[in-house]
Amino acid sequence: MTSFDPTVLDWSQLPVHQPLPGVSGSVRMGANLSAATFRLEPGAIVPRHSHVNEEFGQILSGTLRLEVGTDTQDLRTGDGFLIPGDVPHSAVAGPEGCLLLECYSPPRNPFVPQGTGETS
Amino acid sequence: MTSFDPTVLDWSQLPVHQPLPGVSGSVRMGANLSAATFRLEPGAIVPRHSHVNEEFGQILSGTLRLEVGTDTQDLRTGDGFLIPGDVPHSAVAGPEGCLLLECYSPPRNPFVPQGTGETS
Repeated sequence: MTSFDPTVLDWSQLPVHQPLPGVSGSVRMGANLSAATFRLEPGAIVPRHSHVNEEFGQILSGTLRLEVGTDTQDLRTGDGFLIPGDVPHSAVAGPEGCLLLECYSPPRNPFVPQGTGETS
Repeated sequence: MTSFDPTVLDWSQLPVHQPLPGVSGSVRMGANLSAATFRLEPGAIVPRHSHVNEEFGQILSGTLRLEVGTDTQDLRTGDGFLIPGDVPHSAVAGPEGCLLLECYSPPRNPFVPQGTGETS
């Protein structure tokens, strides 16, 4: 089990990854879950994908068009969402961009190819 | 597995619980994790407690003094934290109160006595 590490409190101290054009973010891996922040530039696209990990998301600022399965939702600051494992989803940031927080369980590193890495 | 339910997108549509004086919140239970929002009034206290569930938290607005084990941190908007399972922790909201998002894995309903309930 990971011991408590006060350095996790400041997202700005974590490495920044740029997995897609207009998308950057950081991740903190836990034992049972992982947490990631994403900054999407206006119009940035996260292509349709799926993974076994359940995914919770929260819009910290801005807007996001989220497609989950065949359902499309326009989300804004303060909205949350919960996507079961293995359900295909995609997203497009709104005209002002989007700051997004996500948690995954089992833990997922979204910045590793295939999105299945277990290391931070 | 829970099917995708677009109603989870709006926290304001979920039941509001008041587990402690000055503390209210809502929870969404998933299969592998749960997510909860808390609104703490200025100076509201969450007494020291622990649970087997790993806990990730993010300060959405305001400030929070968090004690984890023997470590005390003053958190503000945008800060996150990750508490391993079974580590005692407590919190006190700052003078402007605090809006807090948390995720737990395994899923935890923080509004059920003992905090171990599996229902929403």
